[in-house]
Amino acid sequence: MNKQTTHYPFPDKEAIQSAALRIEPYIHHTPVLRSTQLDHMSEGHLFFKCENFQKAGAFKSRGAMNAILSLDQQTMRKGVATHSSGNHAQALARAAMIMKTKAYIVMPETAPQVKVDAVKMYGGIITFCKPTLDDRESTLAMLVQETGAHIIHPYNDYRIIAGQATACMEMISQTPHLDLVLCPVGGGGLLSGTALCLQYFSPATKLIACEPRGADDAYRSFKSGHFQPSIKPDTIADGLLTSLGDLTFPIITQYVSDIVTVSDEEIISSMKLIWERMKIVIEPSSAVPLAAVLSGRVKVKGLNVGIILSGGNIDLNKIPWL
Amino acid sequence: MNKQTTHYPFPDKEAIQSAALRIEPYIHHTPVLRSTQLDHMSEGHLFFKCENFQKAGAFKSRGAMNAILSLDQQTMRKGVATHSSGNHAQALARAAMIMKTKAYIVMPETAPQVKVDAVKMYGGIITFCKPTLDDRESTLAMLVQETGAHIIHPYNDYRIIAGQATACMEMISQTPHLDLVLCPVGGGGLLSGTALCLQYFSPATKLIACEPRGADDAYRSFKSGHFQPSIKPDTIADGLLTSLGDLTFPIITQYVSDIVTVSDEEIISSMKLIWERMKIVIEPSSAVPLAAVLSGRVKVKGLNVGIILSGGNIDLNKIPWL
Repeated sequence: MNKQTTHYPFPDKEAIQSAALRIEPYIHHTPVLRSTQLDHMSEGHLFFKCENFQKAGAFKSRGAMNAILSLDQQTMRKGVATHSSGNHAQALARAAMIMKTKAYIVMPETAPQVKVDAVKMYGGIITFCKPTLDDRESTLAMLVQETGAHIIHPYNDYRIIAGQATACMEMISQTPHLDLVLCPVGGGGLLSGTALCLQYFSPATKLIACEPRGADDAYRSFKSGHFQPSIKPDTIADGLLTSLGDLTFPIITQYVSDIVTVSDEEIISSMKLIWERMKIVIEPSSAVPLAAVLSGRVKVKGLNVGIILSGGNIDLNKIPWL
Repeated sequence: MNKQTTHYPFPDKEAIQSAALRIEPYIHHTPVLRSTQLDHMSEGHLFFKCENFQKAGAFKSRGAMNAILSLDQQTMRKGVATHSSGNHAQALARAAMIMKTKAYIVMPETAPQVKVDAVKMYGGIITFCKPTLDDRESTLAMLVQETGAHIIHPYNDYRIIAGQATACMEMISQTPHLDLVLCPVGGGGLLSGTALCLQYFSPATKLIACEPRGADDAYRSFKSGHFQPSIKPDTIADGLLTSLGDLTFPIITQYVSDIVTVSDEEIISSMKLIWERMKIVIEPSSAVPLAAVLSGRVKVKGLNVGIILSGGNIDLNKIPWL
């Protein structure tokens, strides 16, 4: 798919740069950490961008802040609304709290308790729904009709995509030249933002997306060239259950080099390894890129590799390897 | 107890400064992290010095490197030896590996598997013993007789104390003026180093030691003014089972403001809170100071408080709250 077939112009260089400036007072400039032992195991030079340390525990705070800061006063006053399996919900609730407006959040009744609690802590107003895309969307439509709130989609929104792109923009300023960036993919907000960012600011860097095998719509869509949503996604990486959107898919098709998939077992063992060796808490979604490396599906020998650790929100009473 | 009653001059300002220079190529300059939520809960301004990110997973790498770098060539060649419940063992094994000599490690047979594995990974030569001070010491004496190795005690050694002091020296260079520093205490190596460091470089900062109630020899010794070792210490904080030594006790008596104790339950809940909110992995010993704050035993309202997170080595198959 080339640029002519897309309906809208993608967010440009300036959109990402303005997003970075706009959200700067409200987000963390997260560190890039390294691990001698993981370098040794992978034979590469791995640079981990720690968005698990981000405000509200995930990169989602970037997109949510960028989107909410783009609203006019009148829209802002009626509040914002979304459906989300968790991290976008927390991020949007936090963004709304900062902007002193309301966040109406539709969450699947299967969302981890720790994520539900965090949304409540940020003052989000939760409506639970069944864990299907249909039910999420109809519940959200109903909410919006009642409240007049403005929908901020978790990923299929250029304001969100430009916001998420700032994680990669920071990362490339914190590292030597990266030969490769590895990024997890669910709905594709982080991935498409990362793709645009590299295209504009580090075009020689290759980008490979990493996806759980149990929710491999991006892999199938990318390989076939047409959108194939996940029907009954099932993976431990609960942040990656969603399917691509019509705004993220074209960007991914155009700028991502490849997509690889990994098993839940590989995700869990990479997650444990990161906790153990790097002494940081990440959620399963964050471990997907390292799983792709350690399974041998992405070769990194001798390469400088940026890995985005997307978040750290996990229910500590439910450790996946126990 | 005043200075006249001690047998040796304590390590001076220069000893700590030279330790910092000597070990610099071999250790991490660890970050100081903050948490809005923990500040809110404590009503203080908390600065967490993350020695869980230190080489070999704990501050012990500082003392071990300083001690081994102080040896002459002939002594070095015969190797080093110690008894340790874990973190000093790893640190000394790593230091010996760097200096291309042998580390003979006496470990209690109850040491966590993850610590045993790490010592092996660094090439340490392990001899197991019963988990009593008597058996540790006799096993070590036997080893030294056989090998001619040089003993580097985990804490009762001025080279170790000067090395551990460098964590606090770094911390005060990374933070605004600290009103208070909180430090866990086991054998007192980190605590006495921290005490000397503050005395020399930030004398207006108060120092309070925090100890598990199930291994409260430092508390009892400090309050009574004479050394009272723990007989059968029992706490989840496995790094703090040891009793003070005759070199650490006088420094602590002279320069520490107070010692408070906390229960294992308080330690575990503070540990979980740090994992959950700060997204970092710490071992139980590291959580003792925050437990002292959140239990109300140390008041920090409005104060700048430095908290040393001593280490992050924990068996991830044995999470204490599960």
